Amino acid sequence: MGEFELIRRFFASAACAAGGEGIALGIGDDCALLQLPPGEQLAISTDTLVAGVHFPQQADPFFLGQRALAVSASDLAAMGAKPVAFTLALTLPDARPDWLDGFARGLCAMARDCGIGLVGGDTTRGPLSLTLTVFGRVPAGLALTRAGARPGDLLCVGGSLGDGAGALPLVLGEMQDSGADAEYLLQRYWAPQPQLALGQALRGRATAALDISDGLLADCGHIARASGVALLVEAEKLPLSPALERLFPSEFARKCALAGGDDYRLAFTLPAAELAAVQAQWPEVAVIGRVEAGQGVHLLDAAGVELQPPALGYQHFGSQGD
Amino acid sequence: MGEFELIRRFFASAACAAGGEGIALGIGDDCALLQLPPGEQLAISTDTLVAGVHFPQQADPFFLGQRALAVSASDLAAMGAKPVAFTLALTLPDARPDWLDGFARGLCAMARDCGIGLVGGDTTRGPLSLTLTVFGRVPAGLALTRAGARPGDLLCVGGSLGDGAGALPLVLGEMQDSGADAEYLLQRYWAPQPQLALGQALRGRATAALDISDGLLADCGHIARASGVALLVEAEKLPLSPALERLFPSEFARKCALAGGDDYRLAFTLPAAELAAVQAQWPEVAVIGRVEAGQGVHLLDAAGVELQPPALGYQHFGSQGD
Repeated sequence: MGEFELIRRFFASAACAAGGEGIALGIGDDCALLQLPPGEQLAISTDTLVAGVHFPQQADPFFLGQRALAVSASDLAAMGAKPVAFTLALTLPDARPDWLDGFARGLCAMARDCGIGLVGGDTTRGPLSLTLTVFGRVPAGLALTRAGARPGDLLCVGGSLGDGAGALPLVLGEMQDSGADAEYLLQRYWAPQPQLALGQALRGRATAALDISDGLLADCGHIARASGVALLVEAEKLPLSPALERLFPSEFARKCALAGGDDYRLAFTLPAAELAAVQAQWPEVAVIGRVEAGQGVHLLDAAGVELQPPALGYQHFGSQGD
Repeated sequence: MGEFELIRRFFASAACAAGGEGIALGIGDDCALLQLPPGEQLAISTDTLVAGVHFPQQADPFFLGQRALAVSASDLAAMGAKPVAFTLALTLPDARPDWLDGFARGLCAMARDCGIGLVGGDTTRGPLSLTLTVFGRVPAGLALTRAGARPGDLLCVGGSLGDGAGALPLVLGEMQDSGADAEYLLQRYWAPQPQLALGQALRGRATAALDISDGLLADCGHIARASGVALLVEAEKLPLSPALERLFPSEFARKCALAGGDDYRLAFTLPAAELAAVQAQWPEVAVIGRVEAGQGVHLLDAAGVELQPPALGYQHFGSQGD
């Protein structure tokens, strides 16, 4: 199994390696070369997924390829960046053509959806894991960081929360269900849609943003710390998918929404004056709280009384499994 | 062991995360942000090292950190790129502070040598492996690819060959030697010096270049294929270090130079008119052959008779162990 042969055979297909705008040199040399339009910056993010930690050893390779790229592209969405290219470092115990074929098809399907081209990587022998590094471009000064939230801003999310965590019992085979609701949750887990268009539309509007990978409350903590503000989350306002609400008791569903990871929805802070324009184009954007002076993340009930944040008690195969 | 805590504690030290020129946003957000001077392109390379495949499980963490970054930076040298930044994806079975401390010190020492800043990464739990992605900048159109070698060019290398492969019996503990020659080889293995200045000086001079990671003959094959030429390697002209020649029989030493990996010297093709200027500044640059019309890599003896290329028969812990 030669590195070059493997990479060429499975990943240098036209669909996946297709040159995105800005790729000056792709797979096959010591380095790839990217160029940026004047006035733009390059956004970079790296994520590793390890078998047995972040996904089951026996995960379907198509789903795995799809999910791995989606998870990484979601970090570009969170910065308001437009995807350009990615590299893949794939470590495999052996070279099974059927596995590689499925993985490559899943990866390339998501690459087409995101408009991102594979420009290089490394294939090594070892316990199954994959590291993706994604590159996007964003006009200088307009990237959405975690640091700009201001008292008075609204706290918003890009859609339903908790589906990723709700899918875990199904992913792990602890729960059997072949109905449409279960299928919806599995789809949300294996093929999360990075909110790329929303992220780009929030440039110059949102004051802070990230993607929810560690769980809403933990991720809101990152914004609160980086911005030096308090975030107030109103428990009753969390958007839950009908599938999650039908499949689980409401307390578990809410716990998934608050503390579960793997949703890859954007969470962002927005001046109130911007809300109508954003919701006109993204009606699924929900206001779930607000920014105040202070520090930390505070969970409130409908009467404004502070609640104890839930412990998820669920640490398998999620982003928490670092 | 939280991802953020680990990364902050061990890698966000001022020395290692120091902003190189062009780093607009470093560690701590969803993405890092790089910017390029007008007219420059970004060179990108990804490499994975897996414990038990690319290095021994019990490798000294300081040496491992140093070597991992050197190996990746060498790809930037091969493109003629100037280092800017890197990301680290580190997978660890557990968080041992002494291991992490040693690893971080080795990594940061090499980062200072190369003038490259850590801008992000991911820390995950699992079998020990690391993936580094390095970024450098190079004026548009001047990157050294593998594709420009022309008949008549000289084939050159940036210094002694075979030291990395010669070190392997020592690295693996199959050979015990604490003398100065052994120490030299171990230093070449654990702290290879990426030929960054040489690579940048070859811009606009060399017609093709790469760094020798898979072994001289295999890597020359990459240039021959990409350029559509034949490369003739003269076996008697291979530069060997005095340490390698003293420690091993000459046949083994030559085999290491031809087929051993891990040297991280540059190999490049150069119009003859450029040689004097290059050797004036880099006297260690050696001419080892020439480019002709045709295809493939041909090993010649002093009389110009073609020799059989040696099989190394040595596949542990080298770049061959993919």
